[in-house]
Amino acid sequence: MAHIQLPEGLPGIRGLLAFRPETAQPLGDLANTLLHGPGTLSPGERELIAAYVSQLNDCAYCHHSHAAIAACHLEDEGLVASVMADAERAPISEKLKALLAIAARVQQSGRSVQPSDIARARHEGATDVEIHDTVLIAAMFCMYNRYVDGLGTWTPTDADGYTQRARQVAEHGYVAAIPRAEAPAGARS
Amino acid sequence: MAHIQLPEGLPGIRGLLAFRPETAQPLGDLANTLLHGPGTLSPGERELIAAYVSQLNDCAYCHHSHAAIAACHLEDEGLVASVMADAERAPISEKLKALLAIAARVQQSGRSVQPSDIARARHEGATDVEIHDTVLIAAMFCMYNRYVDGLGTWTPTDADGYTQRARQVAEHGYVAAIPRAEAPAGARS
Repeated sequence: MAHIQLPEGLPGIRGLLAFRPETAQPLGDLANTLLHGPGTLSPGERELIAAYVSQLNDCAYCHHSHAAIAACHLEDEGLVASVMADAERAPISEKLKALLAIAARVQQSGRSVQPSDIARARHEGATDVEIHDTVLIAAMFCMYNRYVDGLGTWTPTDADGYTQRARQVAEHGYVAAIPRAEAPAGARS
Repeated sequence: MAHIQLPEGLPGIRGLLAFRPETAQPLGDLANTLLHGPGTLSPGERELIAAYVSQLNDCAYCHHSHAAIAACHLEDEGLVASVMADAERAPISEKLKALLAIAARVQQSGRSVQPSDIARARHEGATDVEIHDTVLIAAMFCMYNRYVDGLGTWTPTDADGYTQRARQVAEHGYVAAIPRAEAPAGARS
């Protein structure tokens, strides 16, 4: 049961967004800009960073959600699983490995990012905007993960729910995904 | 020196907001809604939570900035210093002490918030919205602190700069505070 009284039937952050529409708007805009908006990192790559940081923060809802969205964009569930298991050995670009390494540092603390982490990413071709966005995506999920778990929200355990939702987000982005109170009641465990 | 090429003369998050206006807008809106907008916790109390979490994250720029803004709202620098030194013994309400204890849990991890932490806050009169906003403010600063330090931004060391800026933010809020490129060049160390 969540720590506060949330609308029924909305898992994870969705119940929180419905509870507090005033903060839902900028939270949705931020996610949409960083994960779904124009950028030289593909939406699939950005969702991998989101899922990876959420896994490091042990936030099951965000991890499953963003792994499913990444799989949707990349059309490859196995690739997502291999990045989550061992990013350095996964079949992804050296640039993305370097950016994931920066994201892992940010998850620990902003102060743990070293000039050598940045130099590695630059050597693999990362631009300033890509480094900026990687740090902010990682930092943003250190917020979302704490928000979702800190209020004890509902984490569904059926994989199908995450996959269905992932298709909507991958297609339409996050701003359209702010839930309203039309969700079916009684679905919350 | 920052890890990426930022506009000159803008410290901490201000250089980052000027670097990436697309994310500056929702980041500013979020801070303004949670810290400056209408609410039953006073802006001074909310800024104390922000400064407290930033101190726990060892983010000097955010800690000094929000301590100065809290002192501006509360008209009491000594009170802010006493909360930063030992919140449980500071001359603040029992409700605010309970909310600061929740914020400290969130700083560690969302999963570290215990039902007993929530029960204590409720016992001291905290509402669901106040508990929600405390968790989200704490989570938000786990983002801002990592953003500011993860990109190696400039942290000024003169107290006067923080105080001047604090007066502007305390009066006008955060949305108006998104910097443009008019800042003096060459002030960045």
